[in-house]
Amino acid sequence: MSADRWSDRLRSSMTTRDSLVCVGIDPDLTRMPAPLQATDDVESLLVRFAAGIIDATADIACAYKPNLGFFLAHGAAGIRALERIRPLIPSTTPAILDAKIGDIGTTAAAYARGVYDTMGYDAVTLSPYLGEDALVPFISRADRGVFILCKTSNPGSGDLQDLDVAGQPLYRVVADTIRDWSTRHPATLGMVVGATYPEQLAAIRVACPDQPILLPGVGAQAGDLAAAVRSGVDAHGLGLVVTSSRAIIYASSGDDWMDAARAAAIDLRDAVNAIRAN
Amino acid sequence: MSADRWSDRLRSSMTTRDSLVCVGIDPDLTRMPAPLQATDDVESLLVRFAAGIIDATADIACAYKPNLGFFLAHGAAGIRALERIRPLIPSTTPAILDAKIGDIGTTAAAYARGVYDTMGYDAVTLSPYLGEDALVPFISRADRGVFILCKTSNPGSGDLQDLDVAGQPLYRVVADTIRDWSTRHPATLGMVVGATYPEQLAAIRVACPDQPILLPGVGAQAGDLAAAVRSGVDAHGLGLVVTSSRAIIYASSGDDWMDAARAAAIDLRDAVNAIRAN
Repeated sequence: MSADRWSDRLRSSMTTRDSLVCVGIDPDLTRMPAPLQATDDVESLLVRFAAGIIDATADIACAYKPNLGFFLAHGAAGIRALERIRPLIPSTTPAILDAKIGDIGTTAAAYARGVYDTMGYDAVTLSPYLGEDALVPFISRADRGVFILCKTSNPGSGDLQDLDVAGQPLYRVVADTIRDWSTRHPATLGMVVGATYPEQLAAIRVACPDQPILLPGVGAQAGDLAAAVRSGVDAHGLGLVVTSSRAIIYASSGDDWMDAARAAAIDLRDAVNAIRAN
Repeated sequence: MSADRWSDRLRSSMTTRDSLVCVGIDPDLTRMPAPLQATDDVESLLVRFAAGIIDATADIACAYKPNLGFFLAHGAAGIRALERIRPLIPSTTPAILDAKIGDIGTTAAAYARGVYDTMGYDAVTLSPYLGEDALVPFISRADRGVFILCKTSNPGSGDLQDLDVAGQPLYRVVADTIRDWSTRHPATLGMVVGATYPEQLAAIRVACPDQPILLPGVGAQAGDLAAAVRSGVDAHGLGLVVTSSRAIIYASSGDDWMDAARAAAIDLRDAVNAIRAN
């Protein structure tokens, strides 16, 4: 953690490592590497797995993004693991908690304390559905970042997000709204846009030239990486957090799991950089 | 927990106790009753507070609703408390985890395991923003219930929820969508509608005569109870989970905190029943 501005820290991490790759830490107990399978308690297993992934990719990843769901699946033991994993992430690398939460008033304040202070995360993903006042406790600090769900990567994202609002799909209205909220809050407001929707991503980037975009859906979800990176980077070739989870962390389940994770992260970094260079 | 249908369990709990009152368990450490303030560790404090509230209201409450945010604020200690609180709730009383979560694919499945199985909750609040496929792991079990955010109680709920979608506000489209999803899934799909918006609640109840509605915003948020109850109950005078947190659990911070919580719960139950009777 650091008191520096979130936007500066994210950019610095990207430029220092010449990487836009964020490693998603989504531990699934049925896919743990063989050398860890003898670990008895789930808390230790989660920590050892994350420690191995972080150790293997520390100079490649511009950010790490554990997903709260994969830890809450194990109740208190999972959350304890999440707390122990946080300090394993290098201090210059932002830690994003993928939680997709959002609640009102005093509850939002409690969540913000939990995510930012108790657990020590630098940024968090949030839902826009409850409106601006529900986000205030999260977006009132310049040293923290948020990524608000805009156009998600799943097949059913259109159920609500594509609804027509006065001639525009809802996700575009959400993108414009996030840009407007940005002018009123010290935190860096970004958005989540799935790599599986590169055309929509392009339209959002045009509407929001300055907002960081968290891009899930490359790798296992098989989005078109080239189209997504070209559409999603900002004018400086930055501002896009290219997130991959399963394709990196489960690159191998054998003895070479850390080497394989490292190789997959390097491959993705290099592929993204080759697209950026063109 | 029980394998019976969620809709039957909720109705049975309401009719057995002649009560629509759900007690929200939102522990705020700055408001703990004096007799508990000497409790050293936060996990024990949270459990003792919830145990006192449950003990004082067990024959009044048709459901309990801890909010995940107030527990995650304390990290793993809070989640451990949430796990220890679950078995303190009477087995015939539904336990609703207010989490407002929603995520895709394998992540949603992990959350569902955590909420339903690891932590043992009967129902959960969810965000609709990601669409139907993101809800599937939560709504594929007839013994579990979900309440999907529709029109929330906060002042800024209109930022997105009131956007005009082909002549209807978004929250009405969400209500219709929840009703349509109900026909395809075994779980009981309900919705969250704030008591602070009684006219909108009335319109939602007309559109969705059979869906359970979770009603926050009475008590501390000062919604119009009479208008909300009249608008929100179903044709049988049931189907409305009238949730109050602060007005009950912080009714007194003195030695009489349990008696005061009980009295506040009885007052709300009786007020709701008087409205239902007319």
